[in-house]
Amino acid sequence: MDAKEVLEKILREYRRAWSIAYARSLLVWDLETYMPQEGARARGEALANLSTLYREKVMALERDVEGLKDEDLDDFGRGVKRVLGREIKYFSAVPPEIDEELNRTTSEAEVAWRKAKKEGKFSEFRPYLEKIVDLERKIAERLGYEGHPYNALLDLYEEGLTVNDVDSVFSYLLPELKHVLEKVRSEGRFPSKHELEGVEYKVEDMEKVNREVIGMLEMPMTRFRLDVSPHPFTIRISADDVRITTRYEGKDFRSTMFSVIHESGHAMYELMIDKSMEFTPLGQGVSSGIHESQSRFWENIIGRSREFVHLVYPILKRHLKFLTQDEEELYKYFNVVRPSLIRVDADELTYNFHIAVRYEIEKKLIAGEMSASDVPSMWYDLMDKYLGVRPSKDSEGALQDIHWSQGSFGYFPTYTIGNVVAGILYYHFPVKEKVRDGKLNDVKEYLREKVCKYGATYPPKELLRKSFREGYNPKYLVDYLREKYLA
Amino acid sequence: MDAKEVLEKILREYRRAWSIAYARSLLVWDLETYMPQEGARARGEALANLSTLYREKVMALERDVEGLKDEDLDDFGRGVKRVLGREIKYFSAVPPEIDEELNRTTSEAEVAWRKAKKEGKFSEFRPYLEKIVDLERKIAERLGYEGHPYNALLDLYEEGLTVNDVDSVFSYLLPELKHVLEKVRSEGRFPSKHELEGVEYKVEDMEKVNREVIGMLEMPMTRFRLDVSPHPFTIRISADDVRITTRYEGKDFRSTMFSVIHESGHAMYELMIDKSMEFTPLGQGVSSGIHESQSRFWENIIGRSREFVHLVYPILKRHLKFLTQDEEELYKYFNVVRPSLIRVDADELTYNFHIAVRYEIEKKLIAGEMSASDVPSMWYDLMDKYLGVRPSKDSEGALQDIHWSQGSFGYFPTYTIGNVVAGILYYHFPVKEKVRDGKLNDVKEYLREKVCKYGATYPPKELLRKSFREGYNPKYLVDYLREKYLA
Repeated sequence: MDAKEVLEKILREYRRAWSIAYARSLLVWDLETYMPQEGARARGEALANLSTLYREKVMALERDVEGLKDEDLDDFGRGVKRVLGREIKYFSAVPPEIDEELNRTTSEAEVAWRKAKKEGKFSEFRPYLEKIVDLERKIAERLGYEGHPYNALLDLYEEGLTVNDVDSVFSYLLPELKHVLEKVRSEGRFPSKHELEGVEYKVEDMEKVNREVIGMLEMPMTRFRLDVSPHPFTIRISADDVRITTRYEGKDFRSTMFSVIHESGHAMYELMIDKSMEFTPLGQGVSSGIHESQSRFWENIIGRSREFVHLVYPILKRHLKFLTQDEEELYKYFNVVRPSLIRVDADELTYNFHIAVRYEIEKKLIAGEMSASDVPSMWYDLMDKYLGVRPSKDSEGALQDIHWSQGSFGYFPTYTIGNVVAGILYYHFPVKEKVRDGKLNDVKEYLREKVCKYGATYPPKELLRKSFREGYNPKYLVDYLREKYLA
Repeated sequence: MDAKEVLEKILREYRRAWSIAYARSLLVWDLETYMPQEGARARGEALANLSTLYREKVMALERDVEGLKDEDLDDFGRGVKRVLGREIKYFSAVPPEIDEELNRTTSEAEVAWRKAKKEGKFSEFRPYLEKIVDLERKIAERLGYEGHPYNALLDLYEEGLTVNDVDSVFSYLLPELKHVLEKVRSEGRFPSKHELEGVEYKVEDMEKVNREVIGMLEMPMTRFRLDVSPHPFTIRISADDVRITTRYEGKDFRSTMFSVIHESGHAMYELMIDKSMEFTPLGQGVSSGIHESQSRFWENIIGRSREFVHLVYPILKRHLKFLTQDEEELYKYFNVVRPSLIRVDADELTYNFHIAVRYEIEKKLIAGEMSASDVPSMWYDLMDKYLGVRPSKDSEGALQDIHWSQGSFGYFPTYTIGNVVAGILYYHFPVKEKVRDGKLNDVKEYLREKVCKYGATYPPKELLRKSFREGYNPKYLVDYLREKYLA
């Protein structure tokens, strides 16, 4: 068989693995949205079995995938070889027993984390964090790495990302943003708190707003859904079935609206991947960082712009009777600047400092340079250093995020990578003019051509080079923020 | 390995197959409820792949299952051997190519049927029906049978059911019911049409009614859901996750309410199967007929009784402002008796005649004693003979049901089997007293002990013998109907 035939054989057999992954996605979506509570036990059992079957089916492709040579393939073929090769590498390096141990540990850890956070007791979570860090270090060793062991974990979420990359981003980003932040705060043009934050809304009113917002974004309703879950997320079921969720907390209405815009950004990425990649390993967003670049582009650069405020204002006026403020005031409400303790509430200027805190801690934990018990005090010190605020309790410190309990080490940095890439996207396209003219479809087409349509064909760094002749250059993000907050 | 060890090995390996079947169930549920329209193509692809994987995983158990000997096993073990043996027999006899051909044909046939029904043109559906009948006959030959070839197909839905059984049921049932029907119609105590049939309701009002009805039935809401779909159905996801649907047609409010009670009956069966059978081949209702006995027991024998009318009356009064009728009038509305053309609208007295029409036609088609083109005229004649009504168009005749387009030959008779078994259940328990006293949980416990808890442990005939020392004896159904309509 020549390379083309081998590739075809691989793709034919891959459909079995694809169908298992497809089913897993729907099981996860349903778990978070409609599953009756007591269905959880069987759901866990089914997901575990399907993971094993998926591993089996991917590993069955090993010999064929390894037999492929890059020089015999086009970009598509090389992409397939690369993406499957990465999965095979992971499964070969990390045996089922370690995966299962991690699953078991994180299941227990998530429960312990919830309790610890509620009671504000880091000590209750500490033993789980220790165990998870041990497992993550073991996985890093088995995967192998050049340079820092954390590189092995970063690569799982953002292919090719290294400690050098992230250090270099932060070493430019943090001082620059600190400067902008100080200036904004001294000038007082952006409030540090807004009266609308405390105002309660009726859920059905915000449901209507969100429906109209996804209408304005022209989300394709025959290929897309919006539902409710405890934590907002996006999930691709297939090329023509991508779903997002939001939640309704009852006050501070911007929160649910921006979660819808954010998740719609993720969804558009998946919906704009070239259809020819359906049923193949390339039919998915390429990395967490590139995915975040899309969601953050829509949420922040578009969603929090003056131009977007003008578009969304009539919708909000129509459904929120309490809204007496004018557009300018709404723009301020969407762009409150306040160094605060909680990442998910952070504004565009302070957000990346929250990531830097987590990054520094993860890097040291994985290197074995600090222990789990040092995390809370390190957290306090870093928050103080970066943002000048100091948590008084761990529920507002090291216990605030779910990620570590789930074993997601290496994930946080992709949020900043997403912001950085969104900055690059902004630089290369007249976004504001398009939003001002209500031409959101032009923005979509730009994103489709530069990023989305490729799916996972090129690794993130190659994609950026190809589309923008850039790396993870944080300059554009800083320029965008400076322009927005200091102009 | 001794038999116990082999059984344990089988059950351990069966979990893979179970997880695939589990995923398939959720995919089907979602397909009918929440899936965005364009998700259909990938859904079809995933379901087909998962079917192949399921077949693989079940067939991998063949040697171990065949090695088991009944005498070394208890009832549970014999049940596992029997149920898996039936699946293995099917997969061995019917190769994937025939299954795939049937799937392809029925997919096309369903589309053609919808069009043919809409346009009232049987001729457009005829070629598909011919092809499906050919395939069904081929499958019957491959499965093998004693006596009539239709027995092979009946057995797929109701294990052990034969043409002799069904003939014997109808030969008693039809003349007896004809007699009751004539008497009821001559006495005029039950109306042949009711003014409430035409009254329109607001969907949100009937949603509230249905919520309260499932509350009254004490459906366990942490293990159960009610959603909306084009056709009402019940689906078991797992032992603790069983879901039903209904539809809201906008008038004739009893229709959605009785569909909820009917599907709740199916759901209770699945929810009351002994938990020890979870993740095994016995954790499911044993047959279509026994399943229908549960749904029809709840829908007809309980739901359309005077005693139930008394329970549900306050709920209906609370939500349906147009309801000025008293309980007696409501009882009449629930029990209109009218020989009519459409099976799904039929009352308890005429329903089984509709089944007899389909049964006679299927039996002849599978025997090769008539061709697809003879179906419409045969239908007219049988309807005339049994109920004295004659369709003027095929959309009210042979095109009314979806079953044949889906290849479900042998399914219709299980509806009558369900009625017959519901009659047996009624005879052995003081249902009316319990309903009168609002003790629906006592009814559930009775059904649990006599039927539900066993899951698929015993084949239907053995279950009836064990619990009631009976076969498919139609006497009790006739007695029940005579008592209800002529007392």
